[in-house]
Parts: sequence; C-alpha cells; structure tokens
Amino acid sequence: MKAPSEVSTHLKHIEAHSFLASCRETVDSALDKLVPSGADQPADIHRAIRWSLFAGGKRFRPALVIAVGEAFGASVDDLIKTACALEMIHTYSLVHDDLPSMDNDDLRRGRPTCHVQFNEATAILAGDALQTLAFQTLAEDERLTPATRVRVIGEVARAAGTPRGMVAGQAHDLYLESREVEDADLENIHRLKTGALICAAARTGAIIAGAGEDELEAMTSYGAHLGLLFQITDDLLDVTSNAEDLGKTPGKDVRSGKATYPALYGLESTRERARDAYQNTCSALAPIKKPTALLLSIAEFILERRK
Amino acid sequence: MKAPSEVSTHLKHIEAHSFLASCRETVDSALDKLVPSGADQPADIHRAIRWSLFAGGKRFRPALVIAVGEAFGASVDDLIKTACALEMIHTYSLVHDDLPSMDNDDLRRGRPTCHVQFNEATAILAGDALQTLAFQTLAEDERLTPATRVRVIGEVARAAGTPRGMVAGQAHDLYLESREVEDADLENIHRLKTGALICAAARTGAIIAGAGEDELEAMTSYGAHLGLLFQITDDLLDVTSNAEDLGKTPGKDVRSGKATYPALYGLESTRERARDAYQNTCSALAPIKKPTALLLSIAEFILERRK
Repeated sequence: MKAPSEVSTHLKHIEAHSFLASCRETVDSALDKLVPSGADQPADIHRAIRWSLFAGGKRFRPALVIAVGEAFGASVDDLIKTACALEMIHTYSLVHDDLPSMDNDDLRRGRPTCHVQFNEATAILAGDALQTLAFQTLAEDERLTPATRVRVIGEVARAAGTPRGMVAGQAHDLYLESREVEDADLENIHRLKTGALICAAARTGAIIAGAGEDELEAMTSYGAHLGLLFQITDDLLDVTSNAEDLGKTPGKDVRSGKATYPALYGLESTRERARDAYQNTCSALAPIKKPTALLLSIAEFILERRK
Repeated sequence: MKAPSEVSTHLKHIEAHSFLASCRETVDSALDKLVPSGADQPADIHRAIRWSLFAGGKRFRPALVIAVGEAFGASVDDLIKTACALEMIHTYSLVHDDLPSMDNDDLRRGRPTCHVQFNEATAILAGDALQTLAFQTLAEDERLTPATRVRVIGEVARAAGTPRGMVAGQAHDLYLESREVEDADLENIHRLKTGALICAAARTGAIIAGAGEDELEAMTSYGAHLGLLFQITDDLLDVTSNAEDLGKTPGKDVRSGKATYPALYGLESTRERARDAYQNTCSALAPIKKPTALLLSIAEFILERRK
C-alpha cells in the first residue's frame, strides 16, 4: 500500500451514524469522478447511471469496506475504489431488479426508477455498463498491487454472480415468488441476494488491509451475520414504515408474494431473529485484536435503523 | 507464462477455415468447464446461459485471441481463459440485445432467443451472470501473472462498457434507430458495438504473448480494421442471405430501421467498402515480423464468409 493522501485520515469515527454520514460524502465524491458525466456520449446511458447511482443511497456496502479496512490499518485511499465498485454492483442490481419483467417497481428511494425515468432499454444498458465499470474500476486501482486487485476482483465477482452470489439469490427469489416458501429457502435467498455482497464488502476491506487468515475468517462471519441482520431489518421496514421514510412503496414485498421474514414468522418472531443476528454479528468480532468499536456500532445502527 | 500442457500445440494452422473449426472445439470444451452445469442451482439461469452460449456460435473472438497470441508465441493454455471470457461478454450482449425492449428478436442462430425459450427475467439475469463470470474467469486465470490479468481485465472492461465500448455502441444504435443516419454515426456505432470487442481480442492475445508496444499498436490496427470488415460483411449477409444460412431473420435490420452499410450506401458500394477494410486489415500486418499467414487468412475468410 502507498502512503495515504489528502482523501484519507478524516474518517476516525467510532460511532456509526456520523461515520456513515462522513463516508457517504467521501464515496459520493469518488463515484462522481469514476462515472462519465451526463454530457459524455452515450449521454442517455450516463444520465441513467447517475440517476440511479446518485439517488440518495446509504452507501452501506462502501462504508463497510472502509470501516473494516480501517480497523485493520488500511487507508481510505486504498479502500475507496473497491468501496465504489461494490456500490456500482449494488446499484446495477437495483436497476435491473426494478425492471417490469423482474420486480416491476416504479419507485425507488423516493423517485421514479431508472426504466420509468428513461426507458427499459436504457435501464438495461445502464445496468450492464455499471457492472462493467465496477470491474474496470477494480482493475485500474493503481494503489493496490496487481495481486491484491485480482484477489478483490475474484471476491466481488463470486459475490455478484452465480452459483453463490447476488444474481443467484435474485433468481431464487423470483422463482419462489407466490410459491410456498420454507425456512431454508428464505435464508438461502437472503444469504445470496443481500448477504453475499455485504460479506464481500467486509472481506475485501480486510484483504486490502492485509488481514491474516484468522482475521479474514472472523470478518467473513461478521459480514455474513451483518448481511442477514440487514435483510431482516429491511423486511421489517417494508411492513412497518411509511412511504416517506422508506422511499419506496411499503408493504409491496408482502403484496407481491415475496418471501419475507414477517410473512413467514410474524412480526414479533422476526424482531427476535433480528436481535439474534445482531448478537451473532457482535460475537463474530470477539476474536479480533483490533479496534472494533465502529464495527459494533454499525451492527447496532442496522438493528435500530428506521429506513 | 508457464509451459504449455496437453491443451495447446495442436492449433498450428495457417488456413482460417480449419483453424476456426479446431478453435471452436477447444473453446467449447473450455467454456463447458467454466460455466456451472444446468443441474447447479439456480438451474434456470445456468440452463439459460448454456442455451445461449452453446448455440453454435462461430467463436470468432476467442479464435482471434488465440490466433494473435500464438503468432506472438503464447500457448493456447495461456490464451484460452481470455478467449472464453470474451465469448461470455459477446454472448451476454446478444442475450440482452435480443430482449423485447431492445432489438426484440425471437430467433438467433436458428433457434428461439433466450427470453423466448425461458422468460425475460431469466434472460436478463443470465446475461448479468455471464458478464460477471467473464470477469471472474479473467481474475482467476492462474496461468497469467496478476499484472497481466489486471491489464487484460482493464482491456476487456473498456471494450465492453461505456464511453468507448460495446454498450456505448448499442446505445448509439438504439438511439439512431429510424432516425437519419450519417456516415460518421454508422462508423462510430460499428466501431464501438462490434469493433471494440474484436479489437480487444487481438490486443489481449498480443498482451498475453508479451508483444512489444509497436507490435501491440499494429495488432490494434489489425483488430480495428478486421472489426469493421466483420460488421460490413454482417450487414451484407443480412440483406443477401436466406434464413437457413443466417440462423436469424434476414432483412430484419433494414426493416427495423437499423443503421446498416447497404441501407446507407447500397450493395455495390458496401462490397467495395468491405474490400477496402480487407486491404487495410492486411496492411496492418505489414510491420509484423512474426508468422502472419493465419491472420491474413482470417481476414480473407471474413471477407468471403457466407454466414
């Protein structure tokens, strides 16, 4: 790793709320530099990418890369491009998930989804280009050694694709829509659809920082439990929030026959599962001999989140 | 580069027809190992990927990686994963291009397109997963040094995305559909939509073989002219072939208002342009002090092709 430049060293938080707010600015500014401007041809595609990428997302996956990486001693400069690449992968998946033939969502983060604002062909191509840009960004990250870069690219690709990544989760989810869903199905969907990329965020942060094998294993466990916690609270918010807080139509998952925790277990049992996932997330940090206060606070923040 | 194993050393052709036939077997067999089986979950996605990937494609881009790489001294073993990754990118783009909101094609290589055979959501996800698998394959190619791998990934990503790659070409193409098309538009579309990936095939073959800067420049020129030749002959075949030869509905490009060479220049002038592109492709090889008979033969094969 090279010496940190002016971008880094300002994210020394131990409290998730202010850390996430600070991260969001850093990530938004880096993404803005990485994505072609809306004036660059093909303008429609770049405007569509920016429409979806700068829609007020929480930047949770990038923040996790940075929080874990910093805990193990990496600088934000070394982490920022991987952080941005994960957000690109996440956003491309939202753009494609919202399409009429997929979840058919008109509203996302309080505004029209990409295919509604532009058109379907543009949304498909914008998603495609955004996935490509994620891998280009990782390949061109000159602060990391080529060996680290190929390792990170492999991690992100496995977490994003099939048979054990995000697209596999989305496929299972669509397949099970309106079918009888069992415990194992639901956990499998969530582990793949949301968990894999969140886990990859924790793992790549640790890899870039040069964490040891035991540390990496602990971060894999932390990321996996945190990913589950994230999805359970997402399901809870879908039934308990109003549209303004949520930025999308609440209750939609239930009405569309989506597999969710509250649908399968009811609200109270789902809340209990969220607390269990939170406990497991915290326990995963126990063997780590590095400052983990922020990582604990992030888990608490997700447990308590209202949007 | 490591020493070649049993896969390599059998592709010593100087004549394009037999080389392409031999390459196709090698590439098909390697792709079969790289893509999860149709029994692996999510089964629909993997079946859809295989439906489109093993539909009898010419494997032209992989063959070009291998032909150029071998000309500069690389083994097939060192080239095969990059060759496969380019075919994955090409195939994902066909799957998405055929979608109802894009070109709305029902027939491809003589059989139903992916979204017709499966459904639209499956086709979108299969394309997404195939793009991811291309980058995963490149990242995990342990025969190449990490430095070569990140260089190849950068090349492929820039050629596949925006603003100067395949998706940019597809976006321009859609935008100009049924609009007045001018010379510069048409060449720009073709240079991006087809040319960028064909050029990347030639370049990555040369890069893996350790070609020098001058040689790489010559291969860039060879790939760019060959890509143009490929697209002009593709346009010609669309108006002169019958459905059986072509494996898709002939004349469709013209009827859908697509920008094509025959539509803009007429048949005779288009044939002349194909001969010009062929001459330029051959001339690009002049400075190369390596065996180029096969590379010349490939250009001739494309000029003369009937499907």
